[in-house]
Amino acid sequence: MNMPMDGGAAPISKKEREEGLDFAPRFDENGLMAAVVADAATGEILMLAFMNEDALARTLETGEAHFWSRSRGKLWRKGETSGNVLRVVEMRTDCDQDCALLRVEIGGSQAACHTGRRSCFYRRVEMPAPKGAARRLTFVDES
Amino acid sequence: MNMPMDGGAAPISKKEREEGLDFAPRFDENGLMAAVVADAATGEILMLAFMNEDALARTLETGEAHFWSRSRGKLWRKGETSGNVLRVVEMRTDCDQDCALLRVEIGGSQAACHTGRRSCFYRRVEMPAPKGAARRLTFVDES
Repeated sequence: MNMPMDGGAAPISKKEREEGLDFAPRFDENGLMAAVVADAATGEILMLAFMNEDALARTLETGEAHFWSRSRGKLWRKGETSGNVLRVVEMRTDCDQDCALLRVEIGGSQAACHTGRRSCFYRRVEMPAPKGAARRLTFVDES
Repeated sequence: MNMPMDGGAAPISKKEREEGLDFAPRFDENGLMAAVVADAATGEILMLAFMNEDALARTLETGEAHFWSRSRGKLWRKGETSGNVLRVVEMRTDCDQDCALLRVEIGGSQAACHTGRRSCFYRRVEMPAPKGAARRLTFVDES
């Protein structure tokens, strides 16, 4: 289920994928890969979204983060409505090339989250939460 | 396609989901949510994996990161083979509660990546990469 597959590229070995210098991104069965977005200056984790091949290609081409919106089912240039465009300072991939890390500078009002906050990760999950216990969140101090 | 859905919980409003204090995690159509793992001390992004409800429940219960291995199709207690267990210092969720951020301390040999590196994100994607151009990677200086 949901196992990453090659995005149509010629197959390469596990060793080449992990230690090589060819970017051979792998998308899941829905054609998507997860992309973590972090602030280039501070390292703060801002958001997580998904990319399809088209979103990845446009990001690499323009230097602005593009994603695939799973809820709207369409290509999404981040900031197209809000003005909070994400300029990609650096993109990385992981060992098995099935996800991306974008280090960005935020434009506009400096908010990566649609709620107006800088980061989407503004709540902590209370732990430990034993089986059957209520699962509660706490707001994190916002800068 | 692949639109996040409620994990069997009673439906809550968008406002409650985004601004409330109930943890109501949403899993995708494969029953998974992405989980970003970062070093609790330095903020360095170490890896990305997926959780199903069972992996999430065990993580919340034990304080050790559990995932769903998409390639092996089974529950995966991170470090069960390598000894590099991830102790969860803090878990966060995002605005729409469809992904997790784990801030961890790494046990064992301090490597989160199965290649022996601390982080899985040890290669940068060369940019810009115009349409049709070769896509190449560069190794990042490793600490």
